[in-house]
Amino acid sequence: MEAYVHKVQYYETDQMGVVHHSNYIRWFEEARIDYLDKMGMSYDAVEKKGIISPVVSLNCEYKSPARFGDTVFIVTCLKMVSGVKFCFGYEVYDLKSREIRATGESRHCFLKDNKIISIKKENEEVYELFKSYEGVSTTIEGIY
Amino acid sequence: MEAYVHKVQYYETDQMGVVHHSNYIRWFEEARIDYLDKMGMSYDAVEKKGIISPVVSLNCEYKSPARFGDTVFIVTCLKMVSGVKFCFGYEVYDLKSREIRATGESRHCFLKDNKIISIKKENEEVYELFKSYEGVSTTIEGIY
Amino acid sequence: MEAYVHKVQYYETDQMGVVHHSNYIRWFEEARIDYLDKMGMSYDAVEKKGIISPVVSLNCEYKSPARFGDTVFIVTCLKMVSGVKFCFGYEVYDLKSREIRATGESRHCFLKDNKIISIKKENEEVYELFKSYEGVSTTIEGIY
Amino acid sequence: MEAYVHKVQYYETDQMGVVHHSNYIRWFEEARIDYLDKMGMSYDAVEKKGIISPVVSLNCEYKSPARFGDTVFIVTCLKMVSGVKFCFGYEVYDLKSREIRATGESRHCFLKDNKIISIKKENEEVYELFKSYEGVSTTIEGIY
Repeated sequence: MEAYVHKVQYYETDQMGVVHHSNYIRWFEEARIDYLDKMGMSYDAVEKKGIISPVVSLNCEYKSPARFGDTVFIVTCLKMVSGVKFCFGYEVYDLKSREIRATGESRHCFLKDNKIISIKKENEEVYELFKSYEGVSTTIEGIY
Repeated sequence: MEAYVHKVQYYETDQMGVVHHSNYIRWFEEARIDYLDKMGMSYDAVEKKGIISPVVSLNCEYKSPARFGDTVFIVTCLKMVSGVKFCFGYEVYDLKSREIRATGESRHCFLKDNKIISIKKENEEVYELFKSYEGVSTTIEGIY
Repeated sequence: MEAYVHKVQYYETDQMGVVHHSNYIRWFEEARIDYLDKMGMSYDAVEKKGIISPVVSLNCEYKSPARFGDTVFIVTCLKMVSGVKFCFGYEVYDLKSREIRATGESRHCFLKDNKIISIKKENEEVYELFKSYEGVSTTIEGIY
Repeated sequence: MEAYVHKVQYYETDQMGVVHHSNYIRWFEEARIDYLDKMGMSYDAVEKKGIISPVVSLNCEYKSPARFGDTVFIVTCLKMVSGVKFCFGYEVYDLKSREIRATGESRHCFLKDNKIISIKKENEEVYELFKSYEGVSTTIEGIY
């Protein structure tokens, strides 16, 4: 699976002249949904079954600023999967210089009808799919 | 009804050092929802009845840039109401200098179950409330 | 020049379950900057010369809602170029169904040191480049 | 110092029907800038001296969802100040129910001319002001 590529948009900058820090959180979401798509689990399809997987917590370390005109790629890893939660890790790099921009993590649970569920009990197929990708990172081979 | 007041946020700026133009469209929404609240029609309450009023079209003229640290107020007017649509007008001013920042309009219809409805037929009470505010502008008296 | 392609992001939706209307204004910017890139005029490069081209006015008509999971393409046209301003037109279509989602326009001027300038006088090369694309639309040939 | 109050905006929701998680990061910024204003240190004024204080890292725990129509308040604490960095903590509560929505932290450094500086050496006045607020939280007394 290829790493996710994002072109920095003008509206993502702030008056410091760099990307506003809140946008990295949105890029993590883009990369996560792309990862789920690539592993064959459409977020949209799962959400239509009434199962959502909101963010329970997240963190981000900002290493160097991304700027308008840059393209970044995000190496995404499904770091941990259990019956009731999962965790993604992210590394954002500049496409040209390969300089690191940011790293982060997001942790998620599964909700149905506003209640936390065990995806293992609710939908074993989805659980098995998740589990089979545990520890798998996207790669940059296709990008270079 | 008092004009809507908005404090410009850092994350609303872009690398030009001014507020990104897309945010004025969001401010129009803030001002519109505040207007509806003040006229006693909670957008939230109406949406819970399954009636939504999406934006059908909008325009905005940018007169001078708002900056981080500024506070703006928005004079909002329910310019036109018919059975099937309504139109809001907006004027954005700087709170200190009273300099005009932007003007704009948004036009809306009523939707239920993804179909355009006549609010006059669907819910006459809501229609009458809207109609009674036709042409009414918020004022800046309370602000100064 | 190929039309600009945008994948709808989860964070672009609102509680109506569709893309929030303010994001189309951001997509117009994405498409415009992509167009300028393709015609060989990097927005970034021009901005580094101290010339910016802010939005003076814009409008948007919303025809049908885009949703998370959709991909849209935007046919962009540099409709008018004069010494002091230019105008872009946009048509947003769903990539699969080719259904139209929105149309719009944005008008821009050229600013240097916070003053409106004639790009024709300031930088004839940039003016000639702009002028040579007047009336040119991106096409969807490469997309299908 | 009063806690910061924020009215949840429609455009902050996503198709889950709740506030998109990235917006809490923006609310943290609103609360932080409000805190700095209240302690007499205008972020804008410091930025004009060429000193910026970008986010170095942040984290957020999401406890329960905020929704459109809600008002939240944010209890903000300047948790730590040193010559080269500072850390803010945030607690987001629903104004009506006082239910907790989220907690988080952001860590910042001081930059001038793209270099990390010691604010203690660069501008002792600003350092002393920061230091005098170390450990101080905003309160909700004025809110209720």
